[in-house]
Amino acid sequence: MRKLFQAELQSIGDELVQMSQLVAHAMERAYASFEAADTEIAQEVIAADARIDFLQNQLDERAIDLLARQGPVASDLRMIVGSLRMSASLERMGDLARHIAQLARLRFPQHVVPESLAPVFREMAQADIQIAHKLGELLETRDLKIAQEIIRLNAHIDELHLSVFKAVAEPDWTESAPTTADVTLASRFLERYGDHGVSVARKVNYLVTGEWDPQFTEV
Amino acid sequence: MRKLFQAELQSIGDELVQMSQLVAHAMERAYASFEAADTEIAQEVIAADARIDFLQNQLDERAIDLLARQGPVASDLRMIVGSLRMSASLERMGDLARHIAQLARLRFPQHVVPESLAPVFREMAQADIQIAHKLGELLETRDLKIAQEIIRLNAHIDELHLSVFKAVAEPDWTESAPTTADVTLASRFLERYGDHGVSVARKVNYLVTGEWDPQFTEV
Repeated sequence: MRKLFQAELQSIGDELVQMSQLVAHAMERAYASFEAADTEIAQEVIAADARIDFLQNQLDERAIDLLARQGPVASDLRMIVGSLRMSASLERMGDLARHIAQLARLRFPQHVVPESLAPVFREMAQADIQIAHKLGELLETRDLKIAQEIIRLNAHIDELHLSVFKAVAEPDWTESAPTTADVTLASRFLERYGDHGVSVARKVNYLVTGEWDPQFTEV
Repeated sequence: MRKLFQAELQSIGDELVQMSQLVAHAMERAYASFEAADTEIAQEVIAADARIDFLQNQLDERAIDLLARQGPVASDLRMIVGSLRMSASLERMGDLARHIAQLARLRFPQHVVPESLAPVFREMAQADIQIAHKLGELLETRDLKIAQEIIRLNAHIDELHLSVFKAVAEPDWTESAPTTADVTLASRFLERYGDHGVSVARKVNYLVTGEWDPQFTEV
């Protein structure tokens, strides 16, 4: 009985890892479409988001079924409830990758952001992708050093996000208003993706240590 | 035993209603600070958000405790898991109200949005506030007509949100780039608040009917 339960808990863990890999891939491709103004890649990301939503539903149904059949308590129960929350954050990361692809598609054949800001957006997207990859590792190994790396990457994204607002406020910013709006939204999407990554890392940290770490404060 | 369980489930329901009232109040005050460029009201909203976070934690702990002690199944189990999700959405609505207040504080003594767009933002905020009030009613009465009203209000917010982007793209838009960025973010915050409201309505609808209604598709 206990063995079967552990196997089912393991399946849920595996699905979380799989979701983190899918959202990493989604952001890789979304950023590729965004950087290259490639509407075909954008379309692919938008279509693939349904797979992430499906996985979330499947994971949630499995978790609820496990709650119903096994009536787990203590750390097992927290693990399952934590999984429901992590799947929700990962699903949202998939949505945000899709939003980046949607912006790319909307502005095609133009680029969404001007060349002057391309390096900042590249750095943000790369940090997001790293966060998603690290989430997979963290979920697999429970090595809390990885959670710390995720926090650092997210802090870096927050700085880059602020630098976008500073760039927009500079007197030499001569882009059109719609470009300013796009840049603002795209930066916000990339920043939120990192926040959700921290939110997942925070839950893993809690499940391992039994304590909420103030470093992972949500905003 | 069953009676006690029902009473505890009722407490969770009451806390959800209370959270919806708090997030309605938060948006009322946040919008007041935003409209009047009043930094004191903004400060009050920002400080009061901790209360919403506290309520969410309390509700979640109560729900997990109930899962552990009673090992509920079937509709009771779905109700408790649904409550965890609804509390997360309501907490996020509180955050978004806080973000509106933070924008008001950031731009004080200036207004965040130019006068030309003030009526659109007023309409969006009012629809958001109505959504939050209706959530309280929906949670209390389970009257699914109210869920339909929430969907309609949110569809109206989506239109207003799009109209903001259209206004920014008009040739007569002569506002500064930072104002364009603020307008974009503020509109996004108000739009997301409505989405989370629909997400809560969707869960209530599911708990009452046992089916996911495609009208409540999340974006």
